[in-house]
Amino acid sequence: MANDMPARIQVHEEGPREGFQSEAVIVPTAQKIRFIEALAETGIGEIDCVSFVNPKRVPQMADAEEVAAAIRRRPGVRYLGVWMNAQGFRRARQSAVDLCGTLFVSASEQFAIHNNEQNRSGMQDEQRLLLEQYRQAGVAVERLYVFTAFGCNYAGEIAPSIVVNAVADLLALCHGQPEPVVYLADTVGWASPTSVERLLGTLRQRWPQLEFGLHLHDTRGLGIANAATGLRMGVTHFDASCGGLGGCPFAGNKAAAGNIATEELVQLCEEAGIATGIDLDAMIECAALAESIVGHPLLSKVAKGGSLSSRRRRTLHAD
Amino acid sequence: MANDMPARIQVHEEGPREGFQSEAVIVPTAQKIRFIEALAETGIGEIDCVSFVNPKRVPQMADAEEVAAAIRRRPGVRYLGVWMNAQGFRRARQSAVDLCGTLFVSASEQFAIHNNEQNRSGMQDEQRLLLEQYRQAGVAVERLYVFTAFGCNYAGEIAPSIVVNAVADLLALCHGQPEPVVYLADTVGWASPTSVERLLGTLRQRWPQLEFGLHLHDTRGLGIANAATGLRMGVTHFDASCGGLGGCPFAGNKAAAGNIATEELVQLCEEAGIATGIDLDAMIECAALAESIVGHPLLSKVAKGGSLSSRRRRTLHAD
Repeated sequence: MANDMPARIQVHEEGPREGFQSEAVIVPTAQKIRFIEALAETGIGEIDCVSFVNPKRVPQMADAEEVAAAIRRRPGVRYLGVWMNAQGFRRARQSAVDLCGTLFVSASEQFAIHNNEQNRSGMQDEQRLLLEQYRQAGVAVERLYVFTAFGCNYAGEIAPSIVVNAVADLLALCHGQPEPVVYLADTVGWASPTSVERLLGTLRQRWPQLEFGLHLHDTRGLGIANAATGLRMGVTHFDASCGGLGGCPFAGNKAAAGNIATEELVQLCEEAGIATGIDLDAMIECAALAESIVGHPLLSKVAKGGSLSSRRRRTLHAD
Repeated sequence: MANDMPARIQVHEEGPREGFQSEAVIVPTAQKIRFIEALAETGIGEIDCVSFVNPKRVPQMADAEEVAAAIRRRPGVRYLGVWMNAQGFRRARQSAVDLCGTLFVSASEQFAIHNNEQNRSGMQDEQRLLLEQYRQAGVAVERLYVFTAFGCNYAGEIAPSIVVNAVADLLALCHGQPEPVVYLADTVGWASPTSVERLLGTLRQRWPQLEFGLHLHDTRGLGIANAATGLRMGVTHFDASCGGLGGCPFAGNKAAAGNIATEELVQLCEEAGIATGIDLDAMIECAALAESIVGHPLLSKVAKGGSLSSRRRRTLHAD
């Protein structure tokens, strides 16, 4: 078993986008902006602010352009948006978000049909269209996402070979460009330390030069253990959401936990000596803000227990 | 880094004792019994049912003898109790609990003073008294517990050398007997994968023949990641509490998460192919019962998200 712990990771905040998108109640535009601006103060390098999706399907994101335009920018922070197709990208280009070229594939065909309303071959065609648009816009492909890389509520177990093929297809699409980061998304919470190690082992053997990212959900309480395994396996990019906001509203499990909590990932990294650039106590304050915005308790534990570093400072002070 | 994953672990359920002990409201005796009997149906091998402590200090445990006497026993399950001194052990001997000889030491002297009302030398004297009573009662010492093995809210960081000395002292006390399991207790939630690996590495180098246990709290969301690290480091005994009940009421952090949730530990093990003897879905049902008994939400995530095995069964069924 490798221990390729990185010295530094890049954390991508999902709370304002994937997090709010999972909330039943529409968050007022001003609150979204306030949350994004608070997150930017923590030292985090990039924030998913909005998604450019059909407002009829996802009313929570109907104010995407408005939010993107109103954020007071902090230098050095990337304010990103998500799109799933060429139409979404056109909206993103015309908006104030920073553009990050991303391609998507679903390891599970059934999930693609349920979540993205197209089969894998349709998704692949869509990625070609997107890639063409990226070229025209001078946007580099920075990231490849594999949805349901560890399992799917519709298709069940996903064999590593399926993910290998999906990654190979996407890499072939953007042949000739600098190699993007490959993100493995545990979209519906099937990953465990065992499967994270197995899948990353397989992928790194095939592509030792690639950088990997993990998009983890904490559906079964294994999210931070999965992140810890990812760190040991050399993963350098992590998606997470402040407070543990989120979930996958289309996967039929409303009560389940959301993404791994950004502050728990940062706590894990701090103890391992891995730099994130994020002020943990400031991120914990953001989790309290998130809780007040959505109006219900979130499941982050370090947000309740407090950071170890603040605990250590209080201990020293008491001596 | 070693990977000494065991084929099987022993899980010790803490919910009815440490869990309820942390609750502000007194749980009716009949509910305690109902919960213990439900836990015994899950296949778990041992349950901490009560503690024999001063009822003025811990009113929740005032009915210890009554609970112990009333449980309908399931063959093969050990119904255990906790005591911290010779007086408590005398009560336990006269009660219906199964006896498990245990000695205790606190790595942090300040914690011993706050939690056990005596300094380390006083605690050591108490262990000598306990050991003498165990000999008279024909009770073998099965377990040594080191409290605050990873850190302490009063004393701060705990160096591995302090834990080595504490374990050496206890082992010396019970010299000549079969070697007990050494439990490292993260009493107030300071452990991380990094410190679990460091401390277990140190202890196993010194005592390669010993078996180790972990008593983990999920104060900062790292509990299951710590358990996963413990498994890789060959730990064979784990304390956990159904639903994640618990916390340390004397450590001054009421809102914080409790022990690691038994069902999340079992979910972790199931995916790693490690046997626990526990039916995960039955344990998740117990977590719902625990929540209804204490009357407030617990923080277990797999209890909300459902087990992966039940998810897999539903997926197969849908095909």
